[in-house]
Amino acid sequence: MKATVELVSTGAELLSGRTLNTHTQTLARYLAELGLELSRETSAPDDRIAIRDAVRDALARASVVIVTGGLGPTSDDVTRDAVAEVVGAEIVLHTATREAIRQRYERTNRIWSEKVSRHALVLSSADVLENRAGLAPGEAIQWQGRRLFLLPGPPNEFEAVLQDHVMPRLKAVADVLPLQRVFQVAGLGESDIVRLLPEEEFPGPDVSVAYCASPGLVEIRLSALPSAAAVHARAVALVRERLGEWVFAEQRVDLETVVVEALRAAGKTVALAESCTGGLLGHRLTNVPGSSEVFLGGIVAYANASKIRDLGVPADLLEREGAVSPEVALAMAKGVRARFGSDIGVGVTGIAGPSGGTPQKPVGLVYLSVADEAGAKVEELRMGGPRATIKQTTSQRALDMVRRRVAAVH
Amino acid sequence: MKATVELVSTGAELLSGRTLNTHTQTLARYLAELGLELSRETSAPDDRIAIRDAVRDALARASVVIVTGGLGPTSDDVTRDAVAEVVGAEIVLHTATREAIRQRYERTNRIWSEKVSRHALVLSSADVLENRAGLAPGEAIQWQGRRLFLLPGPPNEFEAVLQDHVMPRLKAVADVLPLQRVFQVAGLGESDIVRLLPEEEFPGPDVSVAYCASPGLVEIRLSALPSAAAVHARAVALVRERLGEWVFAEQRVDLETVVVEALRAAGKTVALAESCTGGLLGHRLTNVPGSSEVFLGGIVAYANASKIRDLGVPADLLEREGAVSPEVALAMAKGVRARFGSDIGVGVTGIAGPSGGTPQKPVGLVYLSVADEAGAKVEELRMGGPRATIKQTTSQRALDMVRRRVAAVH
Repeated sequence: MKATVELVSTGAELLSGRTLNTHTQTLARYLAELGLELSRETSAPDDRIAIRDAVRDALARASVVIVTGGLGPTSDDVTRDAVAEVVGAEIVLHTATREAIRQRYERTNRIWSEKVSRHALVLSSADVLENRAGLAPGEAIQWQGRRLFLLPGPPNEFEAVLQDHVMPRLKAVADVLPLQRVFQVAGLGESDIVRLLPEEEFPGPDVSVAYCASPGLVEIRLSALPSAAAVHARAVALVRERLGEWVFAEQRVDLETVVVEALRAAGKTVALAESCTGGLLGHRLTNVPGSSEVFLGGIVAYANASKIRDLGVPADLLEREGAVSPEVALAMAKGVRARFGSDIGVGVTGIAGPSGGTPQKPVGLVYLSVADEAGAKVEELRMGGPRATIKQTTSQRALDMVRRRVAAVH
Repeated sequence: MKATVELVSTGAELLSGRTLNTHTQTLARYLAELGLELSRETSAPDDRIAIRDAVRDALARASVVIVTGGLGPTSDDVTRDAVAEVVGAEIVLHTATREAIRQRYERTNRIWSEKVSRHALVLSSADVLENRAGLAPGEAIQWQGRRLFLLPGPPNEFEAVLQDHVMPRLKAVADVLPLQRVFQVAGLGESDIVRLLPEEEFPGPDVSVAYCASPGLVEIRLSALPSAAAVHARAVALVRERLGEWVFAEQRVDLETVVVEALRAAGKTVALAESCTGGLLGHRLTNVPGSSEVFLGGIVAYANASKIRDLGVPADLLEREGAVSPEVALAMAKGVRARFGSDIGVGVTGIAGPSGGTPQKPVGLVYLSVADEAGAKVEELRMGGPRATIKQTTSQRALDMVRRRVAAVH
């Protein structure tokens, strides 16, 4: 029988509007790899009775129940009490976890108090799941033929324990693994993709095609049962043929990781001249461990004075063309390359809004340039949306330009 | 009696990972204006039985139930069938809505089909709520003393009907507005806060205290009924007394917004010298509209050569103390201030990991410096956690140092 999976998210912040619940989407994407789907999600506040009832109801319907949040040391962390009541377990101190937390506190010179050790309280019947990203461990419990998992609430900790411990355990309950192929595209929008490869061209109904779009990123997923392997392979070949140069990965990986890997493989270094992205590009590259091998640094030239002084953009060019122009983007890319002595220089200038736009140069207009020893290239972007979306989409396109330059696609 | 509100979100896309559920957050923020809180949220797939059960359960607990999605014309739009079964209503064609849709189709030259008129199917017992943003109207149903609302699923249509029709009706049921106070703290961890102000010192059980922690941020929320106003005020005073200088806001606002506002109010400018944060600080400041008034730019000095060349850090100082040292952080802050001619300079250097640590200088060791005309200050941070957490926590502390410097707290 196919496993049914429910999620119970706990935390007042999810129901007060303070925090957007991302657990459902994260979990659903991991489950998809196993051919599993979420059959229900419930968000409950930090209330023992409410959590107890939600978990009890979920266990009555589903064979796998994942509960997140409320495992910390404060009085509103009541998840483990609620779950202990449902499954009839005691709460005990997990001494190995307590000791690990204490050592971590000593290493980082933080003041230990007995209260902190509440992170190490677990259900007596649980397997303790180490949390590499935080203090509170996860827990795995088998109860009346059901599998129950308690996971920490912070998204990075949730994903770490899910990846390290829950997924391997769920592989055992997923019977038929579907064929899946994920294509990630940063340089095209969903409508460009559908134009280059209309859905009706995909071979037959046995392959399902799903698009998932976020700012500057479209994920295309092809799924099929193992019995439809030949049709699935034809669909995969079709995407590669039509969209190949735009696909930056056929797996779940960040664009910045792909770019750092490509630079490392090519033995090339990069430096950044950022205006409207304000540091986001550098932030993203430096999110990748080991990026210091290929990223030399950059200039955040927010004020025009910095573009002139730090990047050598000619003052009369700025005056004549305006800060948001292909000429200035190009001069920024060349200027930062010269200053840092990097193989590649990137220049980004645009109007992130909400103010600062004109009819000729509206909010969402951005010029991107990538320069190397062989020359330079400039692209223009026109986008809608709020400031954060414009910055994010711009950073995606800039990173993808670097990737394609290094791969010599363009 | 205070109204209890539950949300039932329907739609396979919410549980497959394709769409992030934003309804919960949107609704919660509107409810907060009325002093109402969501007591539970459930996401169910496009399955009549699953939706019926979820709505029935919600009606058994809550006095107000809001159901979203599944009101369109296709075969997977089963919400109205499911709800009709729960409340024992017929489904009828709302001719005024049907006519409005038809006229809209004519105006926009779209091809009308009888299928489109399925948008105008409603429960016989419902008040029909006009949807200015789309085709499917909302519905308001009174049933056994409960209020039940059906709202369209697309986020903009959901919000339009919520705003136009649901909020005015809910104002009638929101009787007592609770007292709430939110404190936001960036410079302390949850365990530091609990040590400075142990929970047991809060006055009495009539005030509820909730903590919500994310990297570099703890939100403390005190809630009470109006009848407990005096106790609530004592609790608020207690937080201010113990944690005052660490509280960057008593409302829901980003630290970067507070910092930009503080700089603007003081008429001061800032420039950044970032090493381990790689641009994150600049990214965050430039997320704030209008930040160009106070943020001049920065140097992302990832390589040591850039620290020397662009920030004037003496090569022998780097050699002697190492890049991750209080002395270098200080020189970076002073150097970037001099280069950009800003009132305030910020220097950040540290080891974000996962590699690069030594026993003397482990991963998570960071030095932060803020310099202005009056002098400079250096702080040391020691953290655990992954690279992303270390960067985020560092950026919080750096922004908070700027805030406190401008507010002359330190």
